[in-house]
Amino acid sequence: MGLFSKDIKTLDDLFVHQLRDIYYAEKQIVQALPDMIEKAKDPGLKQGFEAHLGETKNHVKRLEQVFKMHGVEAKGVECPAIDGIIEEADEIAGEVDDKKVLDAALIAAAQAVEHYEITRYGTLIAWAKQLGRPDCASVLQENLEEEKAADSKLTSLAERSVNVKAA
Amino acid sequence: MGLFSKDIKTLDDLFVHQLRDIYYAEKQIVQALPDMIEKAKDPGLKQGFEAHLGETKNHVKRLEQVFKMHGVEAKGVECPAIDGIIEEADEIAGEVDDKKVLDAALIAAAQAVEHYEITRYGTLIAWAKQLGRPDCASVLQENLEEEKAADSKLTSLAERSVNVKAA
Repeated sequence: MGLFSKDIKTLDDLFVHQLRDIYYAEKQIVQALPDMIEKAKDPGLKQGFEAHLGETKNHVKRLEQVFKMHGVEAKGVECPAIDGIIEEADEIAGEVDDKKVLDAALIAAAQAVEHYEITRYGTLIAWAKQLGRPDCASVLQENLEEEKAADSKLTSLAERSVNVKAA
Repeated sequence: MGLFSKDIKTLDDLFVHQLRDIYYAEKQIVQALPDMIEKAKDPGLKQGFEAHLGETKNHVKRLEQVFKMHGVEAKGVECPAIDGIIEEADEIAGEVDDKKVLDAALIAAAQAVEHYEITRYGTLIAWAKQLGRPDCASVLQENLEEEKAADSKLTSLAERSVNVKAA
């Protein structure tokens, strides 16, 4: 899909474009998580990131299932948003000179990623329903629920433990 | 604050860095919204963006108040995340060849912006409380509540009207 070539003519085109955007994003997150696992000091945080890496690989598979159900090729499109969010996470991690403060920064970065996914899945589900594809919406909903749960776990870990140690 | 110069040594440093990140982001949003207002076709969406531009200008002022309360200079730091989110919004808007489908894309883009702000304010409020600054947390909470309300209004507008017209 070329930039400024006006290739998106229908809501279905927009749905497929957004699906490819989140597919690219999920794959970038699979690439980024091992570095975050390595940097995390708090054992609960490290374990949480490891569990979420497994979930994220599964999200990629569910997206491939949705592409198949919808009869379109499973491929990614560049997503400057997730690239920017991950770039910012790398930058801030490089600037923090204390392991406990770094954990707090890693949680914030991970929650920015989760929220990006939450908004994209929310939109995709609404569009799938509007397009008469409750079957696709239902698979996407499984990813959304896991992103929301991951975000809640991070909030709880931050408030219960990581921020306290960092302060 | 230089890249990779390890300038962030405490949770307080991290809080100030994140405050400067969202300050930059809010100012970029003030710059981006007029273009979205111009592109929106649905009168409710246009009006919603206009109202949110007013709120966003007020968020910038509230952040300046928090900088002052915390005794640090009000300045922005580059935020690749919001730059990426806005860049992606511009790209997708340039690819859509139908005014009604464009409205659906504009809502999705605006919700990605809202969710970025929601996650950042959530983090800032948690850190402010941990740092013993409930006064700063309380001002940041006002911004958070307006971002959440804006996001909910966009969801309702999408599901009630814009997606239906786009399909």
